[in-house]
Formats: sequence, C-alpha cells, structure tokens
Amino acid sequence: MLSNQRLFVFAGGESGGWRVARMAAIAGTPLEAVPRIEILGAGQVSNRPVGCRWMLHGVASNERYVTRPEKVDLSARQPALGRPDAERAALIAIRKSERWWALAQDERREIFEERSRHVRIGMKHLPAVARRLHHCRDLATAEPFDFLTWFEYPAAHAAAFDDLVAELRATEEWRYVEREVDLRLQRE
Amino acid sequence: MLSNQRLFVFAGGESGGWRVARMAAIAGTPLEAVPRIEILGAGQVSNRPVGCRWMLHGVASNERYVTRPEKVDLSARQPALGRPDAERAALIAIRKSERWWALAQDERREIFEERSRHVRIGMKHLPAVARRLHHCRDLATAEPFDFLTWFEYPAAHAAAFDDLVAELRATEEWRYVEREVDLRLQRE
Repeated sequence: MLSNQRLFVFAGGESGGWRVARMAAIAGTPLEAVPRIEILGAGQVSNRPVGCRWMLHGVASNERYVTRPEKVDLSARQPALGRPDAERAALIAIRKSERWWALAQDERREIFEERSRHVRIGMKHLPAVARRLHHCRDLATAEPFDFLTWFEYPAAHAAAFDDLVAELRATEEWRYVEREVDLRLQRE
Repeated sequence: MLSNQRLFVFAGGESGGWRVARMAAIAGTPLEAVPRIEILGAGQVSNRPVGCRWMLHGVASNERYVTRPEKVDLSARQPALGRPDAERAALIAIRKSERWWALAQDERREIFEERSRHVRIGMKHLPAVARRLHHCRDLATAEPFDFLTWFEYPAAHAAAFDDLVAELRATEEWRYVEREVDLRLQRE
C-alpha cells in the first residue's frame, strides 16, 4: 500500500545522521536508550534500518488550533528544516490524557492559547527554531504517543531552547501531558 | 502491530450484514460497485473478507469543531449504533480540497458551523439518526477519502435522511468537497 506523503518515521538505533546527546523521560515510561536517530520519509518507511530498536510514526497535518492571524505570523517567521547552521535538534514525544481528548474544541483552544500561550511562547524563538509537528493518535496502529515534534536550531540557541520547553512545561496545557520523552541530538 | 482501538474498516464485496441498496458518486471518481458491506473493528482488520473488492479505513477520534454547548447537546440526543429498528444505513465517504486544509482552524469552524450550520442541520435529525465519523486523512497509508461517516436510521426516516444530505450539500462547506461517494444500505 502506498504511504501517506506526509508520513515520517523516527527510527532509534545504530544508524542515522543525528547522534543522541541526551534522552530523558519527563513524564511516564522512558524510551529505550539509543545512540542515533534516522528520519525516514514516506518513500522509505518500509526499510527498517539496521540495529533499529524502535520506530515512531507520525503524520504532518493541518493545524488544529491556530487562527488566521497566528498562521500568517508563523508562516512569515518560521524557517525551513535542514538549515546547514542548525546542527542541534530535539525530538519531543508527547501523549496527552483522555481528559484532554474529551474536551470540546473551544475548551482545548482556550487552554492551548488563551491560557497557556503555546503559540506566543513558540513565537519568541522564531526564526531560530525550525519545527515540524507529527500526529500519531489517529494512525491505524496503536502508537505510544499522540504527537512527535521535531525541532532544529543552531548550537548558540541551545540554552534558549531549554527555556522554551521549561516555559511550556509550566503551562496549564502541560497538566494534560501524561507521557513525555525528550531527546536532544547533534547532526553528524 | 497492535491496532488502534478506534480503527474501523468498511469492506465492500460479497460478504457482510449490510446489503447495498444504491451507490452513487456525488462528486469525483466512483467506487467500484459491490453488493455488500462488512464493518470490521480493531481486532478484525487483518482478516480480508472473501470476495472483498475494496477496504476503506478510518479512525473515530475527538471532535474538531464542536463547542462545549454543542457537545453537551449532541451527547444528550444522539443514539447509539446497533438499534434493532435502525435497519437502514448510509456510508458517505468524502474528500475535501487542499484549499480547505490550508485554512486556519477559526476559518474552518466559521464555514463549518457559523455559515453552513453543519451541527444544527444534523441536530434536526436526532434522535432518529445514529452516526459515527471516521478520519482517514492522517493514516500512514494514502487513503482515497478524508472522512467516512456511517449513519443508521429506521426505514421511516429514509426520506428525511435524503433531505439531511441535500441540505448539507447545498452549504458553503460542501464547496470544499472534491470527492463524495454515497452508499445506502439495508440490514439483513
């Protein structure tokens, strides 16, 4: 069967162009420690890399919360992935609680932005941080996470990136996060 | 790999408890005509039924547009699937355009409800019509549709159900529908 063209796989193991510098379970069960991450696009996902210990699948999709003015602002400021000077990366995998998913759309938006300022916090780190969000909750297979977010930034922005995730983790939105694994990586 | 517990498969072919009474392509390419539909739940999806001509996969998920008051109202009034007197069914498969998916969340909500009254139109048919919406756009495989909606209703509501779909098809939201196949079924 043909792959969704927006599908990406993060394969943790012995191969790949990103070396894992540190890995931490922020909430819930850790992921098995691996030395490297390989990112596979839609055409490559059937090739399980040699020495692979786990594969996380996610699909890039339409935004679920941002308004038109936020979308315009983000589009104008967010850089593309793959910049040569963005040699640091983070993979942050998150699972939210059933309580979150049982909320109505307006309640989730209210918590996400009006009360937690998720977009506004992220915006302070543009254009330093490039980002791609992948959705996993509605895949046909039972996945361990709801979201995989991949970030790339220059080494000079590493401390600021720590501030970004700390600020998000202190929000009301994060009370609904029941599992979170944070991997930091270096391009090789 | 374990299935998502919210995954359902609609298998068109020679077997299954629902007989196809009529099938129409409302927009775009038709689906191959089949005499029956079998609905498979998460634990059964690897069993391809004998004589199966096509399989459509979808995942039931959180609502994307409804507000808390709408959700409360719907929950109070919508019946469960599988009522013995609901012997008619419809499977309506839809694909929306790239233009729809490029809209921001607030723009899609505005078209969906404030201008097209999708929820309010559906509400007029409660509790006669039971419904389950399945999402296909973010599966790992390339799917022919974005949504599969399954409806069950008593034979006495069949003409009213025709009015429901006609009213929805006349809305602004439907200008973003680029493929739609409509199957009507009878329980046997």
